[in-house]
Amino acid sequence: MRVLILGGDGYLGWPTAMRFSGQGHEVAVLDSFARRRWVEEAGSHSLTPIVSLEERIEAWREVSGKDIEAYVGDIAEGTFVADVVREFEPDAIVHYGEQPSAPWSMKSVEHAVTTQANNVIGSLKLLWAMRDYAPDAHLIKLGTMGEYGTPNIDIEEGFIEIEHKGRKDTLPFPKLPGSLYHLSKVHDSHNIHFACRIWGLRATDLNQGVVYGIETPETRLDERLITRFDYDELFGTALNRFAVQAVIGHPLTVYGKGGQTRGFLNIVDTVQSVLLTAENPPTEGEYRVFNQFTETFNVADLADKVQHAAGELGIEVQVDHVANPRLELEQHYYNPTHTKLLELGLEPTLLSETLIESMLEVIRRHKDRVISDVIDPVTQWRPELLGQPR
Amino acid sequence: MRVLILGGDGYLGWPTAMRFSGQGHEVAVLDSFARRRWVEEAGSHSLTPIVSLEERIEAWREVSGKDIEAYVGDIAEGTFVADVVREFEPDAIVHYGEQPSAPWSMKSVEHAVTTQANNVIGSLKLLWAMRDYAPDAHLIKLGTMGEYGTPNIDIEEGFIEIEHKGRKDTLPFPKLPGSLYHLSKVHDSHNIHFACRIWGLRATDLNQGVVYGIETPETRLDERLITRFDYDELFGTALNRFAVQAVIGHPLTVYGKGGQTRGFLNIVDTVQSVLLTAENPPTEGEYRVFNQFTETFNVADLADKVQHAAGELGIEVQVDHVANPRLELEQHYYNPTHTKLLELGLEPTLLSETLIESMLEVIRRHKDRVISDVIDPVTQWRPELLGQPR
Repeated sequence: MRVLILGGDGYLGWPTAMRFSGQGHEVAVLDSFARRRWVEEAGSHSLTPIVSLEERIEAWREVSGKDIEAYVGDIAEGTFVADVVREFEPDAIVHYGEQPSAPWSMKSVEHAVTTQANNVIGSLKLLWAMRDYAPDAHLIKLGTMGEYGTPNIDIEEGFIEIEHKGRKDTLPFPKLPGSLYHLSKVHDSHNIHFACRIWGLRATDLNQGVVYGIETPETRLDERLITRFDYDELFGTALNRFAVQAVIGHPLTVYGKGGQTRGFLNIVDTVQSVLLTAENPPTEGEYRVFNQFTETFNVADLADKVQHAAGELGIEVQVDHVANPRLELEQHYYNPTHTKLLELGLEPTLLSETLIESMLEVIRRHKDRVISDVIDPVTQWRPELLGQPR
Repeated sequence: MRVLILGGDGYLGWPTAMRFSGQGHEVAVLDSFARRRWVEEAGSHSLTPIVSLEERIEAWREVSGKDIEAYVGDIAEGTFVADVVREFEPDAIVHYGEQPSAPWSMKSVEHAVTTQANNVIGSLKLLWAMRDYAPDAHLIKLGTMGEYGTPNIDIEEGFIEIEHKGRKDTLPFPKLPGSLYHLSKVHDSHNIHFACRIWGLRATDLNQGVVYGIETPETRLDERLITRFDYDELFGTALNRFAVQAVIGHPLTVYGKGGQTRGFLNIVDTVQSVLLTAENPPTEGEYRVFNQFTETFNVADLADKVQHAAGELGIEVQVDHVANPRLELEQHYYNPTHTKLLELGLEPTLLSETLIESMLEVIRRHKDRVISDVIDPVTQWRPELLGQPR
């Protein structure tokens, strides 16, 4: 299979590229290095000392004997993505190529516009490129569980059967996204669904939970193959950020009550899920949604788990409930379905104390690189909390 | 009330501006003249010989003694809309400032990208401008009934109560839009709902049906006050296009079977609805959706009505069922609710034979201006119909 990976230099994109390549597929990665730039602009950098894409590809060649092609550019600009699709002729396109941070999208009108323009227009150009040059390719798009928000009913995988005034239909599951970033993914989902209905494209939207973890079997093969790992308030996600806080002796920053419940999964399950999805493509015109996570936790429980695992390593950790910078329910019903990937054969790697301990050990090796003043939440969902206009 | 009208030089925007001004409100219009440019680029022009915005405003001053302010620029560009909102300090913002054509959005990747960038990013910048400079203003946003598509259940006004596995919630009505233009309005709706939830803005989304008609009481006051009227395949809508076809002896182009049912309303009811909405604002943080139409018709029935009215004026008209350039159901269930504007006092002007005859009379006066080769459908929803790639 010829697989094009958009955002292939990122936290998940790079391990995914290696997995497909290791399985004998022809892989190309496309990246604009926007993630590296955005994290640097925020005064942070990856905890792990990642090398350049060129060096990664060279290291992978040395280790595996396999080539990964690279295309450097921005899918939202000009005809770049169409040119790449026409030239590479992919059978599958894995699309991680988006601005992935909720708080980053809420920082200012410029951040909001960049998020939605980059994500929505980039993906729209990709859909047209597929329509014109790869109409039979399978789009595997990374969405987010955050598209659904926290409705008071069970969340289904993309669609729900509704009975209303004596009639029935199966319709897209209603969305209540919680940030302008999450909204960009909702917009993408609607555009992709349309492209399947109208142009007969085939796509799988992976509504992913919060990913944690630092290593996959491939990243361990050579230190140059390690993937990036962010812990700052913008690009660091709950469990990863807690683990870094624990190692450097920073109190764990639980936002508000900590009753916010979310779906989580290990980075190794992301890679496994994307591969399974690619190996089981949809039919022509089919738009599928898989809810891609393995367990749900609330944030306070996660902090407790990290605190306990750190204690086992002799690190004493405090848990702080800080003012929630987001607007979200801190106690709510949450019961999302997630059976479709399990039916395809996903074997979850569940969160265990041993797993947290091994994350803490890896982080400890890079402890000196941590920039501690980018960890506390600064970006607020509502301007009045910062004394801005309104 | 201080009312800012985005797209105030357009088909609906200009009559709306005159109505608010005539009612004693302080009115400013904002326009980039994109509609004039897009129609010209398509080789067409308004059937009615519209004058420049400057001349319109001068004519309105002569007729009414009232001033309308004008801001010329693009809300998606730079800080223009924020600058205008800060300077004008509106109490209400009526937002018609979008690319309004479904076929135009489907012509090419460039048209698709312009549509979604212009509409989604323009509206997003407007929301941030309101957040920063007019947090108590009322946003009256023109959406479209086409956001809903044609589900097999009754369409509600924006939200639906769903009972699922023994639990209940009231959630956004699921959307199945039929073009990249309609999708841009779905994206807007999600962004606006979010801005109300998070920033406490107040907004009414008017999901409007297909508007027909050529005159309002204000446009009749002086020939320079007439509004634009499009009949081409891109910017002309069903009834308006049929009326022009009848007058010039062109067969009425019904797409496919003609069983497509849609909500319709007279231009005078658009103006009345927007005024009623402005006079009855939502509360802080409230996001309301009104389905803005007065009757439903299927396209074949409309063609019959125009054929009959033309006959009364001695014009013989043929009805042609041409290959449908769109992908849509040509026979379907359609029962959308539309009670909220009626509850506010909307008094519908329903479609009658007299009304069609008076439209035909006005069109007859401008018959010599019709460019007949822009009427037949050329823009296809699926590329293979045109022999393009795929």
